[in-house]
Amino acid sequence: MGFFSKDIKSINDLFVHTLRDIYYAENQILKALPDMIAKASDPQLRQGFQTHLGETKNQVARLEQVFRQHGHEPSGVDCPAIDGIIEEADDVAGEIDDKAVLDAALIAAAQAVEHYEITRYGSLIAWAKQLGREDCAALLQQNLDEEKAADKKLTALAESRVNRRAA
Amino acid sequence: MGFFSKDIKSINDLFVHTLRDIYYAENQILKALPDMIAKASDPQLRQGFQTHLGETKNQVARLEQVFRQHGHEPSGVDCPAIDGIIEEADDVAGEIDDKAVLDAALIAAAQAVEHYEITRYGSLIAWAKQLGREDCAALLQQNLDEEKAADKKLTALAESRVNRRAA
Repeated sequence: MGFFSKDIKSINDLFVHTLRDIYYAENQILKALPDMIAKASDPQLRQGFQTHLGETKNQVARLEQVFRQHGHEPSGVDCPAIDGIIEEADDVAGEIDDKAVLDAALIAAAQAVEHYEITRYGSLIAWAKQLGREDCAALLQQNLDEEKAADKKLTALAESRVNRRAA
Repeated sequence: MGFFSKDIKSINDLFVHTLRDIYYAENQILKALPDMIAKASDPQLRQGFQTHLGETKNQVARLEQVFRQHGHEPSGVDCPAIDGIIEEADDVAGEIDDKAVLDAALIAAAQAVEHYEITRYGSLIAWAKQLGREDCAALLQQNLDEEKAADKKLTALAESRVNRRAA
């Protein structure tokens, strides 16, 4: 952040700023996912990450639509939160050799990413509705629903097989 | 992280490492909350942060109990994720003068913190159960329940008054 100073003067400015934040975050996730796919051993986990890579591309396209509907060109802004979450995921993965334990850690890392997105989309949808932008809120809701579903799938995968194999 | 290399060899190591991560995170939140209380204008929001400061102290104490039950001295490990989330909260707050807009941004920042804790406690509880540590899982569940309740209260506060005042 910090691309302007004391320049968030309204809920509309806060909405656009946070839209830029999640746009940057989704693009960072697009870059990180291929590495997570390469590290995953469990075939269902690899497939889950692969599916989410496709979903993330659609989410970025929806964000670009929200920007344009709201009269802005799509652009990102540095997001130390997602950078920290991804840095931490890399740090932990670098400390693990065992493939089954690594799968468990990858799921936890992916869920930290999902929860970051869930909280940001939740705020963005509330602000969009407050601004009377039901059209933007509806697109953001589609992204939120996908993130929540992805998070639930990861929990199910952890509990049904990955944690057990790692233990 | 990074206090040991390739040294997460088991799900137990991953559990202890992540316990250290959330212990560091909760302590960083303890340091950040007084500043958020000072910045908040809405009396219910200030009160909510104040209540959560008390809850966070109890959560740190519960984590120390989990460490001891599991045969470890409580200790933290750097957590770039929470550092990034708090840095971002400070950056955004620094760009806002209007008190009502700042309140809306503070709620969003606090919810990003809650969601980070929710995801980490979720993973920790699953691993504790896998390790047969129902006693640790029960304590961690109390923390998780408090974080989820805090997140819901923030959503209600945003939707019932803070976002409206900011708009």
